[in-house]
Amino acid sequence: MSRGQTDSLPGFAYRFSDPALLRQALTHRSHGDSHYERLEFLGDALLNFVVAESLYHQRPHVNEGDLSRLRSRLVRDSTLAKIAQEVDLGDSLRLGGGELKSGGYLRESILADCLEAIIGAVYLDGGFESARSLVLRLLASRIESLPDAEALKDPKTRLQELLQARGLPLPKYRLVAESGADHAKQFQVACCVALLDEVVEASAGSRRKAEQAAARQVLARLDQASPP
Amino acid sequence: MSRGQTDSLPGFAYRFSDPALLRQALTHRSHGDSHYERLEFLGDALLNFVVAESLYHQRPHVNEGDLSRLRSRLVRDSTLAKIAQEVDLGDSLRLGGGELKSGGYLRESILADCLEAIIGAVYLDGGFESARSLVLRLLASRIESLPDAEALKDPKTRLQELLQARGLPLPKYRLVAESGADHAKQFQVACCVALLDEVVEASAGSRRKAEQAAARQVLARLDQASPP
Repeated sequence: MSRGQTDSLPGFAYRFSDPALLRQALTHRSHGDSHYERLEFLGDALLNFVVAESLYHQRPHVNEGDLSRLRSRLVRDSTLAKIAQEVDLGDSLRLGGGELKSGGYLRESILADCLEAIIGAVYLDGGFESARSLVLRLLASRIESLPDAEALKDPKTRLQELLQARGLPLPKYRLVAESGADHAKQFQVACCVALLDEVVEASAGSRRKAEQAAARQVLARLDQASPP
Repeated sequence: MSRGQTDSLPGFAYRFSDPALLRQALTHRSHGDSHYERLEFLGDALLNFVVAESLYHQRPHVNEGDLSRLRSRLVRDSTLAKIAQEVDLGDSLRLGGGELKSGGYLRESILADCLEAIIGAVYLDGGFESARSLVLRLLASRIESLPDAEALKDPKTRLQELLQARGLPLPKYRLVAESGADHAKQFQVACCVALLDEVVEASAGSRRKAEQAAARQVLARLDQASPP
């Protein structure tokens, strides 16, 4: 069978009735007009739904915000790119121009997008159940090993919830200083909570990151202060 | 049949096998512990997928970015809230506390969230095809009357694409002035393009909005300058 007529990929356990769909899903826009971007739109939506449904059933006591956070971790580019690498998807990708494959290096986003496109192509080729099984098969080990929702929260959220649970006022963040040239600004932020006597300060390249860093430090000190 | 056992809603053309699911979908967190938020997470994901699939088939020549923009318009809170109002969903909502319903005024986001929760509940109760038909029924007239994808682009995007299509350099935006107190800052931005001799300026409450306003004015002048 010639390369143009491949009807399946190693690691996907699915055989296409219409190999042209698979070929389109494997084609980057740099390689040709019939590329994967529309399929990626479809596959991304299906992936998000199938993962939502799976988490909904598997975590009956987890609230909506935590379900969203858990899903983000499963469907983000870095996770999808790793899965794509595990099944050697890069070997089958059709890319134009030497620059994209230079040094054997493939951008994470291209691998992730292509994986979504294949999911979309399987949906069109084999229907909802085929695509759903594929998604669950590809993600199985990662769904299995997801951490508790709590561990995925950012420090500001965790700090806020910890204070609210004890009926205490919300933390106060204040911008203390901005320094550096425009392209390399540093923001210093102070965080003040009722449970600590001192004000904790942290710096980072954006105000938001500095606030998160300050909240992380406050959480660490509270952890040390309270016996387990 | 008592209110607690309602198994259908006017305008939805769906009868629940499990009326408890419908009751949960109609219950805001202010009213009770068994509220709609998890169902909303599920329904939101299903809605996004069904709309993606519908647009994919109906607009075979529209690219991924434009498909996303078209979908956003259909699934945004303001659209969903209008649909909820058309089927008088507010009448069936279970809210706690007088404040939420004060003056008969219901927040857009609550109506939209509840509609998504009902979609999620129909999926759990009747399966994918039931939920899919419901979504397409609720959105039919709006999918029908969607504008061209081109018309949904923001002014900066349209201006950029217009210049690129003519092989011209990208527009340049420059912050000319910031004024006003922190809570009421105004940003004045200048936009400069190769096709116009003059620099066009616009002001708004954020830099991004000021840039969009400037791009809109540039587009309007280019429109006047070129014969149709």
